[in-house]
Amino acid sequence: MSKGGKIEPRRLKGFRDYLPAVMRGRYRISDAVRFEAELAGFQPVGTPALEYAEILLGQGGEETDKQVYKFTDHGDRQVALRFDLTVPFARFVAEHQGELTFPFKRMQIGDVWRGENTQKGRYREFGQCDLDIIGNDSVAADVEVLLTLARILKRVGFGKFTVAVGHRPVLSALIRKTLGITDVQAETQALIALDKLAKIGADKVREMLVKIPENIHGEAGAAALLGQLQQKTATGDSDLAAVQAFLGSDEASGASMQRLKHTLDLLRQLTADLSELTLRLDLTIARGLGYYTGIVFETTIDALPGFGSICSGGRYNDLASRFTTRELPGVGGSVGLDRLLAALEELNQLSDVRSAEVFVAVATADAQAYAFTIAQAVRGNGMACDIGLGGKLSNQFKHADRLGARFVITVGTDEVVSRTANVKDMKLGTEKKGVSSDQLLQELKLSDSDVF
Amino acid sequence: MSKGGKIEPRRLKGFRDYLPAVMRGRYRISDAVRFEAELAGFQPVGTPALEYAEILLGQGGEETDKQVYKFTDHGDRQVALRFDLTVPFARFVAEHQGELTFPFKRMQIGDVWRGENTQKGRYREFGQCDLDIIGNDSVAADVEVLLTLARILKRVGFGKFTVAVGHRPVLSALIRKTLGITDVQAETQALIALDKLAKIGADKVREMLVKIPENIHGEAGAAALLGQLQQKTATGDSDLAAVQAFLGSDEASGASMQRLKHTLDLLRQLTADLSELTLRLDLTIARGLGYYTGIVFETTIDALPGFGSICSGGRYNDLASRFTTRELPGVGGSVGLDRLLAALEELNQLSDVRSAEVFVAVATADAQAYAFTIAQAVRGNGMACDIGLGGKLSNQFKHADRLGARFVITVGTDEVVSRTANVKDMKLGTEKKGVSSDQLLQELKLSDSDVF
Repeated sequence: MSKGGKIEPRRLKGFRDYLPAVMRGRYRISDAVRFEAELAGFQPVGTPALEYAEILLGQGGEETDKQVYKFTDHGDRQVALRFDLTVPFARFVAEHQGELTFPFKRMQIGDVWRGENTQKGRYREFGQCDLDIIGNDSVAADVEVLLTLARILKRVGFGKFTVAVGHRPVLSALIRKTLGITDVQAETQALIALDKLAKIGADKVREMLVKIPENIHGEAGAAALLGQLQQKTATGDSDLAAVQAFLGSDEASGASMQRLKHTLDLLRQLTADLSELTLRLDLTIARGLGYYTGIVFETTIDALPGFGSICSGGRYNDLASRFTTRELPGVGGSVGLDRLLAALEELNQLSDVRSAEVFVAVATADAQAYAFTIAQAVRGNGMACDIGLGGKLSNQFKHADRLGARFVITVGTDEVVSRTANVKDMKLGTEKKGVSSDQLLQELKLSDSDVF
Repeated sequence: MSKGGKIEPRRLKGFRDYLPAVMRGRYRISDAVRFEAELAGFQPVGTPALEYAEILLGQGGEETDKQVYKFTDHGDRQVALRFDLTVPFARFVAEHQGELTFPFKRMQIGDVWRGENTQKGRYREFGQCDLDIIGNDSVAADVEVLLTLARILKRVGFGKFTVAVGHRPVLSALIRKTLGITDVQAETQALIALDKLAKIGADKVREMLVKIPENIHGEAGAAALLGQLQQKTATGDSDLAAVQAFLGSDEASGASMQRLKHTLDLLRQLTADLSELTLRLDLTIARGLGYYTGIVFETTIDALPGFGSICSGGRYNDLASRFTTRELPGVGGSVGLDRLLAALEELNQLSDVRSAEVFVAVATADAQAYAFTIAQAVRGNGMACDIGLGGKLSNQFKHADRLGARFVITVGTDEVVSRTANVKDMKLGTEKKGVSSDQLLQELKLSDSDVF
């Protein structure tokens, strides 16, 4: 890999560098998460990137286990890089339950690693922002998580989005009744098939459903299931009344449907002012495998149909059962940091960020200290300000232009003596010479104050 | 590791979880870094946690190579977890040089991993916040990095700190002259010995210096070196004039000393208003191995003598020489995120953070929606507000108390009807009943507006 004695500067497949404009977009998302989460009383936590392999494996199914980055460390321990923020959080809650106050509202932002096949917008290292409420089984907790996630997505500010909410027990009841299934494995196969509905279409899903050996109603069963799921009301929501009529006297699913309806009613009422959000009842939402036992949800960007979900989650009834006998029901959701970042890139929302609003150019070496004094004053007033580090003045101007600076302040020997500066507005092309110290910040549209 | 069918929830040695109070302290540090770096025009970047092993190895010396977490991935590639943010950044700059504008000012915050022996306050996973200016060799760049780092540490707000600045070429000249050394390896051995001065004391360093085979002046040489380094002026700085007199007509070190003096003069002038900072010229600063070719610096917290450096760095003349023929001189420094966090813990500055300022308790189930409406109004006014998720009112109050809430707002059926709320000040123990919607936010010391 050596060229003329040099090592080729290359990255691993599926791993990316973040250049400044993209990195700023990443911070824009994680800052929105932190801002709204903190306002709503979610508490930040952190867990290690590396865990004992036994903590992580056997949780996300065989497919996931295969993708986990695992190795033997210096102390001969089997270790692995986390593939999500949920399994380590289960370990965290079990280990620290005595130090936490329940219900515990958690916010965690971190990177995860999966050795999956790379495709457009999919990476082997990607960030997740998780919100969860642990130790509570209420509709209010479901609402609080969804409400906070919606406010986060509004704050990121990319435009309109749709949160589709389904309910795992209702979907399970439909699968069992239409396909005549009682076996959990077979039910999971049906869920996996339905999870692909948006991606591969109804015909292919029907084929998959027919092939499930335990489906005793075959073609008719598959058609009935898809028929029930595809019934829509005038507003485009799943037709809960029709499904309820079909399921009849199934008490468990009746209670589930009541709860789902109550959750959506509350959400609709509390998000009436959130014009970016469309709430949709969608019983087809399956969330593949996983541990969901109540609502499940996915979020899509209205301007990017086919892009896939950027924020999803649901309710689970026992977070940490592998680690503790304590029952910890919870509800949570995750904003896909790099998925949403890829969406912002696709929406061309990451381009025009400037690195500095003001640039102080230094015409003569003896003006460097004075230039720093000016730069510090501008920074002290909250404007990003870069400074020339020597070299030709024309090159400093070119550099300032590339950084996107709106104003270039120039100082040299004369300005040091007269305590003035020259200010060029790079947008208007105008220049003012000999601006005095007490006018400079005003010139930059800042509050006036004599700062140097 | 299974107890009663349960997996023991344990962490790897040297890895830590961050509970909320500590995690907030971590964000307090990284936010200070981001705020000041952005004001000064440093640009955020990101690089992967995993790199090809050949990119990372052979850079930090044999000791470091041994500590690197390396393994073979699914595609049979030799990969490794980054052990610092500098070597991956060298790869980054070489790979993206066409996309960057030089001088490039970089800010990067990220975790790194080292399999080193764990000790108090030292972890195998820890965060670093790096600032660098690449593609520039000026005193102004040195000053800009040090200035920005000092403003970051002021902003974190832990109290007084001391930045000790040395100069590698001056130190090298002293080593060569006193020990009669010309060999680079031997010089490195002397640097490694001097780097331990604060930790093991002058006597043990002298022993190490005497043992260097190339030290042709033996005991006398070691004594002369330490004698030169320990000369202090009345202000406690290294006595640069005395060292200059000793080194005599060595032109290179003469220029180095002029530059060092100029750097410190500029820094003293520009940080005169920064009362937390003590600047100290300290020629003993060696920064162990590494690639430094100009100033080197370390930062200590005045209230924690013996704690060690929380922020260090220096100038290097060729960042990316392993990857590109392009010469890229630079200067950089790194805030040890978890070192500084450990310092904040030791200073008891992480304890009294509240999770929510306001808590909305729900007395009756039919008041849940109304409670959410109030919580949203409070949040909309920028106050962190948690909400009751059902259960006994007394338990909700206990929970609110544990979260540190200053105000508990209670609503039930009556309040829904009258559009009022009861507000208890948990600090004063006072309660106001029937507070109307237009008075509630005022009651919480917020601006008044009719919000619900």
